[in-house]
Amino acid sequence: MHPVDHPLLRSEPRYFDAEVLTDFVRLVFERLNVPSEEAYQAARVLISADLRGIDSHGVARLHSYVGLLESGRINPRPRPSIVRESPACATVDGDNGMGLVIGPHANRIACDKADEFGSGWVTVRNSNHFGIAGYYVRDTISRGKIGLAMTNSTSVVAPLWGMERQLGTNPIAAGFPGQEEPALVIDMATSVVCFGKIERAISDGREIPLGWAIDKQGETTSDPRDVKRGGAILPLGSVREKGGHKGYCLGAAVDLLSAVLSGANWGPFAPSFVASDRTPRRRVGDGIGHFFGALSIEGFADPETFRKEVDAWIRTFHATTPRPGSSGPLVPGDPERIALEINTREGIPLSQSVQESLDEVASRLGVPLGG
Amino acid sequence: MHPVDHPLLRSEPRYFDAEVLTDFVRLVFERLNVPSEEAYQAARVLISADLRGIDSHGVARLHSYVGLLESGRINPRPRPSIVRESPACATVDGDNGMGLVIGPHANRIACDKADEFGSGWVTVRNSNHFGIAGYYVRDTISRGKIGLAMTNSTSVVAPLWGMERQLGTNPIAAGFPGQEEPALVIDMATSVVCFGKIERAISDGREIPLGWAIDKQGETTSDPRDVKRGGAILPLGSVREKGGHKGYCLGAAVDLLSAVLSGANWGPFAPSFVASDRTPRRRVGDGIGHFFGALSIEGFADPETFRKEVDAWIRTFHATTPRPGSSGPLVPGDPERIALEINTREGIPLSQSVQESLDEVASRLGVPLGG
Repeated sequence: MHPVDHPLLRSEPRYFDAEVLTDFVRLVFERLNVPSEEAYQAARVLISADLRGIDSHGVARLHSYVGLLESGRINPRPRPSIVRESPACATVDGDNGMGLVIGPHANRIACDKADEFGSGWVTVRNSNHFGIAGYYVRDTISRGKIGLAMTNSTSVVAPLWGMERQLGTNPIAAGFPGQEEPALVIDMATSVVCFGKIERAISDGREIPLGWAIDKQGETTSDPRDVKRGGAILPLGSVREKGGHKGYCLGAAVDLLSAVLSGANWGPFAPSFVASDRTPRRRVGDGIGHFFGALSIEGFADPETFRKEVDAWIRTFHATTPRPGSSGPLVPGDPERIALEINTREGIPLSQSVQESLDEVASRLGVPLGG
Repeated sequence: MHPVDHPLLRSEPRYFDAEVLTDFVRLVFERLNVPSEEAYQAARVLISADLRGIDSHGVARLHSYVGLLESGRINPRPRPSIVRESPACATVDGDNGMGLVIGPHANRIACDKADEFGSGWVTVRNSNHFGIAGYYVRDTISRGKIGLAMTNSTSVVAPLWGMERQLGTNPIAAGFPGQEEPALVIDMATSVVCFGKIERAISDGREIPLGWAIDKQGETTSDPRDVKRGGAILPLGSVREKGGHKGYCLGAAVDLLSAVLSGANWGPFAPSFVASDRTPRRRVGDGIGHFFGALSIEGFADPETFRKEVDAWIRTFHATTPRPGSSGPLVPGDPERIALEINTREGIPLSQSVQESLDEVASRLGVPLGG
């Protein structure tokens, strides 16, 4: 993740202040008819990815959001509504708004329900890509709770023993607050790698390890371009012998909770994230789906006792004897926290190609990009 | 999983009726001072594993449960209690009872809360091994709900980049009811393989694939005996490049929800499942921990509409074009369902060594084993 490893950044690094980028994204969304407060919310979700080194999910995707808003495929002024509800649960219809706006709204409902009933669970349909799943559990942690977030997404993953794209990279995030230690934040695709790693290998001209992907004949491949030529990414575990059925099961669970339960388009029917891509062959619901959970610690334990025990857990795992040639285990959230410290101090590094895509958006919409 | 693949079964297969085995296990537990109804409950959980071909978690483990009861390390007459509660959540203290008894009790509380508030979440401390996680979500499905179950367990898994055993194989189960199709049931260890596969490779004299385990120097090994000689199993994903950090994250999440949240012994401090094994070097809570969840579908969607959509999901995934050389994807729960049909019809196959361990228990406790 660190910029020095990236050839594009080695040649053309440029560092942007997070506030400057947030302002820019907000103004871009406002120009596309998104209300000011929601534009700011969406910008914060997007920049939170760049700040944590997850640059595939940050402003690098702005041009895709812009394309979908410009083509009318996303509603800039959604009025999300609760369409079904029980005390601790709800289904939200996102009115085809940006996931970056609908996601935070739905997650707040989950947290409010957790305040009242001990836990809150919200499934969302008729939404669009929501940025990094980790954003939502960090929000839930900031309210003193345990958080869970997941989403289905455009299909690019083949189930074990299949050669068709049937699932998205369907990430799962979970977060647990500590007392003195930083929160534990898990945020992981349920595929062996996310799509961004395939794209990076293509742009770097590198081969990918066997076990990441298959080509359109269903054969294992080391050429990342095969994924774009009708191939697919494999689930976490890659093959049966290494637990490929488990990654497939996890991706399925995300699809069922996010999309089947909410009434969104599940599996291969999830709409494309890019305005120019083909529409899936069938429509089985509305938009894509998310699933958010919040657990109030008070219902299980004294919150301070729990957070101190999380601290002890973190210290125990950090103290694990390292394997030869490694500096020892991290705990979930360490890489993003380290990137956040560096990027807050030194600015967010943007590659030449991302800068160009932002410049293009800036000049077309007449929104100046400072920095 | 199918018996014909197992050398011990090829040489000495013997098939037992499920009712006969259930009666035997019930009588064994009763002889060890477990109340009749709870002995029957425990027997049903254990035999449900054998019926589904998960023979490592069935009567093959009876001698371990017997050893723990005989040595006084498990309380045969526990009085589990709710020690903390909110409308949708609770923490249960299992009073050091068998997990096979405490687990079903706690899962019922989760389901009851889901009936009342839409969802129920119960974390459990001071319990012991609870059999297969899938048992619990099937129980929850039988009440028309979506189920979740997980447990921490004796540490045998090294976190990515670590060479010490810090986590158990920490399984996750999740289940979703269908309408005409059988329920989708996920039940998976968060390690690349469960401990039973290591034991089977040892008894078969086979090597294990690279990526399953490390030896006590932290080096990759293909000798399954190295795990018992101070090595460790690797998390799902095995190595960083293939997502080993993700398996580690999943195992961590199970540990945090089951043990840290409940006040059980987490991570490397989980007590051993076998009476003769060493006690962990520190005690950080009571017994091991579980976590159960139940979601009432009514709070999210019309239940029949949801179940029919699950059917459509299953049919779509079954219809995936197979990869060359395979017969195509299964859906979660297929292998266990197929084994259940065969074993219900033909009886439960027990290997020579499992028969001998049952015979030993039978003669020592004076409980006849029919069949």
